[in-house]
Amino acid sequence: MTFSADQRANIDRYWSTIESSAEIGKGRTGGLSRLTLTDDDRRMRDLFVNWCREAGLSVEIDELGNIFGRREGRDPTLAPVMIGSHLDTQINGGRFDGIAGVLAGLEVVRSLNDCGHVTKRPIVIVDWTNEEGARFSPPMVASGCFVGAYEVDWVKQLVSDDGARFGDELHRIGYDGHKPCKAGDIDAYFELHIEQGPILDLEKRDVGVVTGGYPSYGMRVRFNGRTAHTGPTPMDLRHNALIAGARWLTAVDDIGWDFAVGDGKATGARLAAWPNKPGILSDTAQAICDVRHPDPATARVMAEKMRRAVFESAARAGCEAEIEDEWFWGGDIFDGEMVGQIRAEAKRMNYNWRDIQSQAGHDAYFLARHCPTAMIFTPCKGGITHNNEESCDPSDLAPGLNVLLHSVVARADR
Amino acid sequence: MTFSADQRANIDRYWSTIESSAEIGKGRTGGLSRLTLTDDDRRMRDLFVNWCREAGLSVEIDELGNIFGRREGRDPTLAPVMIGSHLDTQINGGRFDGIAGVLAGLEVVRSLNDCGHVTKRPIVIVDWTNEEGARFSPPMVASGCFVGAYEVDWVKQLVSDDGARFGDELHRIGYDGHKPCKAGDIDAYFELHIEQGPILDLEKRDVGVVTGGYPSYGMRVRFNGRTAHTGPTPMDLRHNALIAGARWLTAVDDIGWDFAVGDGKATGARLAAWPNKPGILSDTAQAICDVRHPDPATARVMAEKMRRAVFESAARAGCEAEIEDEWFWGGDIFDGEMVGQIRAEAKRMNYNWRDIQSQAGHDAYFLARHCPTAMIFTPCKGGITHNNEESCDPSDLAPGLNVLLHSVVARADR
Repeated sequence: MTFSADQRANIDRYWSTIESSAEIGKGRTGGLSRLTLTDDDRRMRDLFVNWCREAGLSVEIDELGNIFGRREGRDPTLAPVMIGSHLDTQINGGRFDGIAGVLAGLEVVRSLNDCGHVTKRPIVIVDWTNEEGARFSPPMVASGCFVGAYEVDWVKQLVSDDGARFGDELHRIGYDGHKPCKAGDIDAYFELHIEQGPILDLEKRDVGVVTGGYPSYGMRVRFNGRTAHTGPTPMDLRHNALIAGARWLTAVDDIGWDFAVGDGKATGARLAAWPNKPGILSDTAQAICDVRHPDPATARVMAEKMRRAVFESAARAGCEAEIEDEWFWGGDIFDGEMVGQIRAEAKRMNYNWRDIQSQAGHDAYFLARHCPTAMIFTPCKGGITHNNEESCDPSDLAPGLNVLLHSVVARADR
Repeated sequence: MTFSADQRANIDRYWSTIESSAEIGKGRTGGLSRLTLTDDDRRMRDLFVNWCREAGLSVEIDELGNIFGRREGRDPTLAPVMIGSHLDTQINGGRFDGIAGVLAGLEVVRSLNDCGHVTKRPIVIVDWTNEEGARFSPPMVASGCFVGAYEVDWVKQLVSDDGARFGDELHRIGYDGHKPCKAGDIDAYFELHIEQGPILDLEKRDVGVVTGGYPSYGMRVRFNGRTAHTGPTPMDLRHNALIAGARWLTAVDDIGWDFAVGDGKATGARLAAWPNKPGILSDTAQAICDVRHPDPATARVMAEKMRRAVFESAARAGCEAEIEDEWFWGGDIFDGEMVGQIRAEAKRMNYNWRDIQSQAGHDAYFLARHCPTAMIFTPCKGGITHNNEESCDPSDLAPGLNVLLHSVVARADR
């Protein structure tokens, strides 16, 4: 059996692999709560490493716990084709977000094993650490570090809400590898992901060909105030950091509504104040917001308004504000040739496809800074995600998986 | 030596007792973080019980951990005069709030012991459990239960942020006493307290004669939304409970500013959302706000606006709102005769005094529902409180302490 244009991935095997993953770190009914660098994350990693070895891959772990499984090519000196995503989830996450992408990489390898086809270039499948940023903010630090956007030491000193250090937790679960977290030559990076939006499902599309991402700006802000009694302290002598934060989140939400018609979005995602208790005004508050818009210029306008609102909100509450971290991702970042090839494979297999922009952040955004990169989206029910109700059928995933398989092989054989 | 009009409390002894208390449960520099029913609270209680016994008092603990130290009167059948306040603090609290009042009661007893004066009525000094409400919301539950405003079982099932049950913690620290938490006949209840506002300090007054409290309305609200991804979810499909909460806190703060000229205040004190993480919209949020105004009718208007804002904020964020708890305190509640007597003692001792309204909640508010009640305020630096910078000198406390001593004896001897 050789690899032919009619070859299809084994969707049953792929599905049962996803189901095995969904047994580890169960959250609310149907969902997963598999935060990065927890015991559940370790169990999932162990299982994934096993699967890789069973598939004949050589496994390497880098300094930030990224797991690489390499299938050698006919010419090992050539830059590999890489397929990746993440196995960690949100605290109230689903069983497909990220996971579907990593395990699609595994299924590509298994399918090639089935037919004994060895590609010209090596194929490397990757699990990126902490894509979600749900335990250690910001998200996508490990793929970011891989392409030089962050320093290893900076990532290792990140502290979670529960007071744990990234580096300590990585060591604790035994995934602080020796390989430097630094990208070498990569021929192409592919990432399959559920859409996390409603468009493909609504339009009954089989596959989304991702042309880029909504330009997205985010920031983490600290508001500094001063504790005082809630009763006697006059309004104009208050420095309630909680109110500074609440005002900022409200202002950012207003920005979202102002630009909603053009599909702009703005999110107040986090507000954590201290002491945050009845009877006392809060000393400090940390808040995280972001804005997104398909049009880059409009996204910039929204970001500027979000930034101005930081200082207006702080001033209104008699507090100081400090922008602790800022990020940007998205735009027209994917490789035209790869996107064209994905489109061609979808057409050839008679799938109902469309071009689409990603609205969420992905590791692929960072990889695109380093090498030709593209993404393939699969539908998910109602676009619901970061929720235990996130749901796909095998038939939602099979077309994207087959497009991935053929796109990867075409790239790896050239 | 007998008790005479010239008798004064021993301010040095009182001060050193306050300093001993300030060694237990230290918070940030200078302050205390002695949350109710913690190990530090137990250590403070043990010390207080010791002090009571050394002063010859018989000690009883009731079902909610309220500690009563009784000095018998010449006629033990008469209703006692009671002096109380609380030994717990805010998480970032000071060393005087509440503590000055309980230990003033102790100093009254010690001063009477010094001169061997036995009053006609018994004198009972009290430490009320969980006045602050900083660990178990709402505040003042144990004095509230004492006068029949709450049920013992309801109080015992309150759960703290750290997941502990009130009843379990009470048992753990060994202060679940056998005495029913139910007020008997009480002739009068006195409470000395630092002002927790700037007026006495600004006007260089020695003593505040408290005539009542700012009518205060508070509520605890739960907002219910639904998790989803912060990226692709369109604004009008969002149910971000964190935004519902942020909008409510912002609206309540606006109410405070609208009524600030008449000395109205409105506070967003707490907002705790889940998951409250970047990348995900929050499922639930709990928020606590209150409003206060010296004029009862205006306070009611503010409360009504606060209530309306609950549902407007929830609707704006696509969430449901549920008012979990509501409270009211304050008004013109103190006993005219007792207030007159406190005023007369302050005059007689040539202190620079003024009438004043309390803006904070106090156990005395609940006691006033049951028996004649009055409060004495002492100045504190800049009115700063619920802050580690809360500060008093012995000279700030001595006048109030002496007024308390003579007012109590006058009452207990009649």
